[in-house]
Amino acid sequence: MSNTRQSATLLISAPDKKGLVAALANFLMTYNANIMHADQHQDTSENLFLMRIQWELDGFTLPMDAFAAAFQPIAAEHNMTWKVSLSSRKPRMAIFVSKYEHCLVDLLHRWRIGELNCDIPLVISNHEDCRRLVEFNGIPFHVVPVTRENKAEAEAEQFRLLEEAGADFIVLARYMQVLSGEFVKRYPDRVINIHHSFLPAFDGAKPYHRAFARGVKLIGATSHYVTEDLDEGPIIEQEVTRISHRDDVEDLIQKGRDLEKVVLSRAVRWHVDDRILSYSNKTVVFD
Amino acid sequence: MSNTRQSATLLISAPDKKGLVAALANFLMTYNANIMHADQHQDTSENLFLMRIQWELDGFTLPMDAFAAAFQPIAAEHNMTWKVSLSSRKPRMAIFVSKYEHCLVDLLHRWRIGELNCDIPLVISNHEDCRRLVEFNGIPFHVVPVTRENKAEAEAEQFRLLEEAGADFIVLARYMQVLSGEFVKRYPDRVINIHHSFLPAFDGAKPYHRAFARGVKLIGATSHYVTEDLDEGPIIEQEVTRISHRDDVEDLIQKGRDLEKVVLSRAVRWHVDDRILSYSNKTVVFD
Amino acid sequence: MSNTRQSATLLISAPDKKGLVAALANFLMTYNANIMHADQHQDTSENLFLMRIQWELDGFTLPMDAFAAAFQPIAAEHNMTWKVSLSSRKPRMAIFVSKYEHCLVDLLHRWRIGELNCDIPLVISNHEDCRRLVEFNGIPFHVVPVTRENKAEAEAEQFRLLEEAGADFIVLARYMQVLSGEFVKRYPDRVINIHHSFLPAFDGAKPYHRAFARGVKLIGATSHYVTEDLDEGPIIEQEVTRISHRDDVEDLIQKGRDLEKVVLSRAVRWHVDDRILSYSNKTVVFD
Amino acid sequence: MSNTRQSATLLISAPDKKGLVAALANFLMTYNANIMHADQHQDTSENLFLMRIQWELDGFTLPMDAFAAAFQPIAAEHNMTWKVSLSSRKPRMAIFVSKYEHCLVDLLHRWRIGELNCDIPLVISNHEDCRRLVEFNGIPFHVVPVTRENKAEAEAEQFRLLEEAGADFIVLARYMQVLSGEFVKRYPDRVINIHHSFLPAFDGAKPYHRAFARGVKLIGATSHYVTEDLDEGPIIEQEVTRISHRDDVEDLIQKGRDLEKVVLSRAVRWHVDDRILSYSNKTVVFD
Repeated sequence: MSNTRQSATLLISAPDKKGLVAALANFLMTYNANIMHADQHQDTSENLFLMRIQWELDGFTLPMDAFAAAFQPIAAEHNMTWKVSLSSRKPRMAIFVSKYEHCLVDLLHRWRIGELNCDIPLVISNHEDCRRLVEFNGIPFHVVPVTRENKAEAEAEQFRLLEEAGADFIVLARYMQVLSGEFVKRYPDRVINIHHSFLPAFDGAKPYHRAFARGVKLIGATSHYVTEDLDEGPIIEQEVTRISHRDDVEDLIQKGRDLEKVVLSRAVRWHVDDRILSYSNKTVVFD
Repeated sequence: MSNTRQSATLLISAPDKKGLVAALANFLMTYNANIMHADQHQDTSENLFLMRIQWELDGFTLPMDAFAAAFQPIAAEHNMTWKVSLSSRKPRMAIFVSKYEHCLVDLLHRWRIGELNCDIPLVISNHEDCRRLVEFNGIPFHVVPVTRENKAEAEAEQFRLLEEAGADFIVLARYMQVLSGEFVKRYPDRVINIHHSFLPAFDGAKPYHRAFARGVKLIGATSHYVTEDLDEGPIIEQEVTRISHRDDVEDLIQKGRDLEKVVLSRAVRWHVDDRILSYSNKTVVFD
Repeated sequence: MSNTRQSATLLISAPDKKGLVAALANFLMTYNANIMHADQHQDTSENLFLMRIQWELDGFTLPMDAFAAAFQPIAAEHNMTWKVSLSSRKPRMAIFVSKYEHCLVDLLHRWRIGELNCDIPLVISNHEDCRRLVEFNGIPFHVVPVTRENKAEAEAEQFRLLEEAGADFIVLARYMQVLSGEFVKRYPDRVINIHHSFLPAFDGAKPYHRAFARGVKLIGATSHYVTEDLDEGPIIEQEVTRISHRDDVEDLIQKGRDLEKVVLSRAVRWHVDDRILSYSNKTVVFD
Repeated sequence: MSNTRQSATLLISAPDKKGLVAALANFLMTYNANIMHADQHQDTSENLFLMRIQWELDGFTLPMDAFAAAFQPIAAEHNMTWKVSLSSRKPRMAIFVSKYEHCLVDLLHRWRIGELNCDIPLVISNHEDCRRLVEFNGIPFHVVPVTRENKAEAEAEQFRLLEEAGADFIVLARYMQVLSGEFVKRYPDRVINIHHSFLPAFDGAKPYHRAFARGVKLIGATSHYVTEDLDEGPIIEQEVTRISHRDDVEDLIQKGRDLEKVVLSRAVRWHVDDRILSYSNKTVVFD
């Protein structure tokens, strides 16, 4: 995690068949790769092979700008979907926030101390509230108000800002607006949301109030990729904490904040570190 | 918990108003009660006061067969609903089971080593499978087959067996039949079920399969009192455990068994120890 | 927790004997107290009775400046040690920090959004590093360098600052200096430390490195009151998280930060809310 | 886990160097292996490469009785330590127990329902207490009394029984005698113990009493391989549970039983499934 050595990470999914690992291992060996981590998974019900390999670039004899051309024949032969990324090129994360700042504070602090190996070119909000905090961290803060009437224009403005900033992915840090289908399609598996319940329980609005009304003994939080179906996207991480009859709704909200921070930040770190593969509305997280 | 001293336990709920605690404390002091545990809770949204008091009988100057008469005036004045129980009179637990025996094995072992301070006068099943295990533990085992057609007769036979055995409450230890509304009405807050999901997620059938399909990162189990609405009764206890993409449905079922055992046995112990008060489709568990 | 109603909280410990609860309940009823929360505990091995009562001041007919005089006779009769506090008088918390800022960031944020019902009149550090962050939050920041040679003078300066600021208690938010015995005696049960291990395992220096070397499967954090014996004071809260062979020391440090924040902030909140009673080098935390 | 397909599992450790994975993958591909699971780990601080590969035997063209000869050249070239096992050959587990039966009950039940893919040729105890339970499960039960004086003779008798039964490994299910150094040397990484604390805290005797005295907020259990240094062997699994001031020593013992069962059974299952590699007094558990 705290690797300062330059490395490349390859994420692969392919129909499972014999010889895949050997093909990959031989390809990397040909160019003298020093493999740092390798993890694989077979989903037998879907006949799918998934793999993550990270290797050191020091000593690797294939220049990375020639990687695609060299790897493509193998990928084609095995029907691989693949993506390679370089530790030297930090992904660019945009954060969307409304008024609740706890997830934002948490992400910014983790970023500042090096837990999140990404750049944060901008924060977008539909309110002014978090400006001072964001600017204290030296990050541009943009307010794009959203109403029922101006939704399309607001998203157009958001797209413009995201493109201008070169954002690779977007984190909804308790952003209280629903994104349009068009937005979601532009950033497939690239918008991470935090929902304040243990999905699929209490999807939709006011989950803490409904958890209180139902009398559950644990509350949870869920981070997931955003899809067109609200709260139905592939789950990345979940966590719960115990509550008791002594906790009222306000206590649930307070305890929930700690869950939301942890669950969202794990998802962000795994995304940044290219640990997540998404398929069939599920995720594999290679640890 | 492992108290061998004889004690009485009083469970109370009443509209919250000033002076309740003083009235109770003074009543008990009058008869020289040595209070071992006292716990109370105010639900401000329902304006409800709930309390559990346990005191030693050694030195208590009011004979317990005169308790009701002596306490009734205070209870009436404060509109209390109350119930007193004696450690010397063990509650009688009936267990219903089908074929999965893990919860049954667990309950019987806890009972054998004294974790559950109750008697088990009988086990009822719709199958023969668990007979040898139950009889090994010296407990009568009754098979009452249940089909779509004979449901009413089967329940009539179950009622007869339960009454004959003097059962106070019933534990559904993975009993795979739905009880009728009439059954539930006979034993209000006296039938404890274990559902193999983190309710309200995945209520109904095949929760592990649906958890797998949804790609959740934690699975759970829920013990609750049975009401007429399936899987909707007051929740007593819940617990979850982590799963990963490496776990298939069979692994979920295996990991879930450990949850089910723990979650059901806690509910049973708390019920036996008179720690649970149920109201508004919720429970307070005094620990 | 988020109570805006004015209230008083009474913490009591006394030799256990019959009539204690009645005496307290009658005293409060005399002055028409509306009890919001009451929790008690008997430690039978120490024959100790411990209680926390919180009541609304609205309608309470005894002026709080006359409370001590009115209550003292009852306290004396029952040999009570007691302390009363008012929600209107926020405790004043001093924070000591060195260079690691994660606990500080966390405490300041919780304070800012109202999770911690206290004032923070100052932060003291032996380094300059956290100045900008502290001052961003509008809190005075004092640097008191500490070396082996100037320890006594440094503490004298710290005492002066603490008294000037009217600090009630001190939180060591990863403060890397050992306090003198004199310091500890000045603030009995009023200095809260976070130790980055699951005490008593790995007390002393470099707990994450030693946890890694020992190959444990969980790491922990412990908040405790500071006593003269390093890492031996009464434990307030502990939490653990799972690690695996994939985690190196850096990963342990990162995962540990999340534990430290949560475990320290819970201790601080409970202390601020007068939920903790300490005796026999243990704590009771009334929830 | 619930695989009914015949498979082979290879565990490897070797000095880390380039080409290891390719060498293994090519070897298996040569014989048309269908890899079901593969997991690897690099310990960079020890420059060690560790791997577990499981493949289907159906279609594998190398007869397993010729495996060693075919694989040895590759193993030698890379200085591998390796072990192959077949799903068709169940490992033989001996259980040692004294009087506490909870871990024994748990293991026997898991074995009966197929969670533990092993045979249990015998149970050895220094007491008669568990005979009825063991024999109910159809397993031979041997009593070998142990005193300070007869320790050597007792172990000689145990060795005889173990050899006669063809035991591969031994589980100490709360067996209250310390094994000699000779015993441990005979079964390196083959004796699994459960210690009723979160090691390294509270090693040695009476951990629950000492946890109570120290006032910890969580108690734990640890399963580990037995080495000559008591409670110092490589840790396989740990788990904790929350306690409070309401729990006395008896409650700790009761809550601890649930931990012990879970933590021991996981270790046993992982050992049986050849998921554990031990080195430098640590374990890697491939999940």
